[in-house]
Amino acid sequence: MKLVSFRYEGHTRIGSIADGQIIDLNLAYRSLLESQGVIRAEQIAEAYIPARMVEFLQGGEHSLQLAKQAVEYVQQNGSALKYKVVHQAADVKIEAPVQTPGKMICVGHNYREHILEMGRGFPPVPVVFAKFSNTIIGPQDDIPFFPISEQLDYEAEFAFVIGKRARDVPQDQALDYVAGYTIVNDVTYRDLQRRTLQWLQGKTVEGTAPMGPWLVTGDELADPTGLEVVLTVNGEERQCSNTSNLVFSVAYLVEFLSNLMTLEPGDVILTGTPGGVGVARDPQVFLKDGDIVRIEIDRIGALENKVSKVEGGQ
Amino acid sequence: MKLVSFRYEGHTRIGSIADGQIIDLNLAYRSLLESQGVIRAEQIAEAYIPARMVEFLQGGEHSLQLAKQAVEYVQQNGSALKYKVVHQAADVKIEAPVQTPGKMICVGHNYREHILEMGRGFPPVPVVFAKFSNTIIGPQDDIPFFPISEQLDYEAEFAFVIGKRARDVPQDQALDYVAGYTIVNDVTYRDLQRRTLQWLQGKTVEGTAPMGPWLVTGDELADPTGLEVVLTVNGEERQCSNTSNLVFSVAYLVEFLSNLMTLEPGDVILTGTPGGVGVARDPQVFLKDGDIVRIEIDRIGALENKVSKVEGGQ
Repeated sequence: MKLVSFRYEGHTRIGSIADGQIIDLNLAYRSLLESQGVIRAEQIAEAYIPARMVEFLQGGEHSLQLAKQAVEYVQQNGSALKYKVVHQAADVKIEAPVQTPGKMICVGHNYREHILEMGRGFPPVPVVFAKFSNTIIGPQDDIPFFPISEQLDYEAEFAFVIGKRARDVPQDQALDYVAGYTIVNDVTYRDLQRRTLQWLQGKTVEGTAPMGPWLVTGDELADPTGLEVVLTVNGEERQCSNTSNLVFSVAYLVEFLSNLMTLEPGDVILTGTPGGVGVARDPQVFLKDGDIVRIEIDRIGALENKVSKVEGGQ
Repeated sequence: MKLVSFRYEGHTRIGSIADGQIIDLNLAYRSLLESQGVIRAEQIAEAYIPARMVEFLQGGEHSLQLAKQAVEYVQQNGSALKYKVVHQAADVKIEAPVQTPGKMICVGHNYREHILEMGRGFPPVPVVFAKFSNTIIGPQDDIPFFPISEQLDYEAEFAFVIGKRARDVPQDQALDYVAGYTIVNDVTYRDLQRRTLQWLQGKTVEGTAPMGPWLVTGDELADPTGLEVVLTVNGEERQCSNTSNLVFSVAYLVEFLSNLMTLEPGDVILTGTPGGVGVARDPQVFLKDGDIVRIEIDRIGALENKVSKVEGGQ
């Protein structure tokens, strides 16, 4: 299943998307319950399939199964629905699939060929750093370029989202704790990142985590290896690798991180970026107003955002 | 006003605390409204003085003023109350004042005398790094010592909490955006912090941000300078400084951070720790099972937690 967050009539809600159509999962399940004569259908739908992604993911496998039943019901009873359950994707705004994760954890230096090309050794443990959720924007939003730096850079990242509370989870069970996969552009103000030893200030500037276009659930994408990752700027290829080149795999990262902290449903983990970022090119090249940054990952889709200069002083 | 979060009969609620008594702010305001014959008193109280701290802070100055009126009402009409509005502090569990901040931002290397004693120059900009809210525990909780390291260390920190959405706020208005002040122990797994360049993994281990005992609001503490900060372990002084020694003041940090990102009500900013942490002592000394770590800051109070070893493997 592909899970989206979408905005319609002033509310952000979750849906499943297929063939350009979005099914509102909360209303779909409410419709299913009402068709069964359940009097408290609205409240039960709200409990099991709330309209926001993090809350929905808290329901775990059970809520996901109910969502599937609801989608089937809608597909078979489309004409009998009382509510606006089905939308054309073109009629709504697609938002970042996860908008309020409790944690957004990023992994640095994690692509094998990139480490080799830099002449470095493989790191013994992952380098991890943070972004806060103020950075999240959706696939139809522009990347704001604030006048606080000249060095705006891109980083294509394959990301996974936690689906089940995880603490001290061994690698061989790790994928059971992953709800699904998406794309994040770990946009970075490179000079701000590097002006102190800690990267946070260049990483958590407003709007620096375009995410989407949707979350591909683990039942549809059982194996997160072997996926091509390609980033282009204005159509020109800048990054290209494959998730099989990750030094620390998704399963390893779940074990490693859950050994340090409890991972919660909705937490987003960015697995690192391949070689080819702007700052490492010769000559260096940074993003500028109007640039179109596009990241494609096999079996997920494409995340494309325009860079848009923000006028005015600090 | 001193704002606390407290746990009573399975719910965490906010209150004001004075002389060992806690007044439940939501119920106090509801009682006030009911005494005025307001029919939707419960809903209006929930809208303006919700029972959780971050939501309450979102109400800003207006909600704070209503809370004060409610406290006055309770003080004058204690015998006429229908609900359990007043608690003895000893009868409830005091929790961390802010439990679900959207961001917890920490500042490194920020005490003047500590930088001088280390022979370093003053940093041109603050070093900032993150903790996630999984780290937060309250003043009556033990600090869990997980068997993933031998190097558990303390860091006394004067912390402030944002009370009003802040973006590009100049220093001279900055304190208007601060709801209040509290104490945080930035507990650190020192070897995990240092095994990679980025500190996050040693900083965001479960339970490493004891916070409290309460939030002293800005109207009670208008000037955050000149406050003594003292940390003891088992009664022995280990850190001692004064908030006047901060290189980057509270006002500067609000300007600096709000230039990078939007600060939201409830965001917690830790201003850095003085000299004297365990890893920098000669000989080095780390925390062990049963140690009592106490931080006192003038005009705020004392935060005291016991270190408690967690048994079992990873």
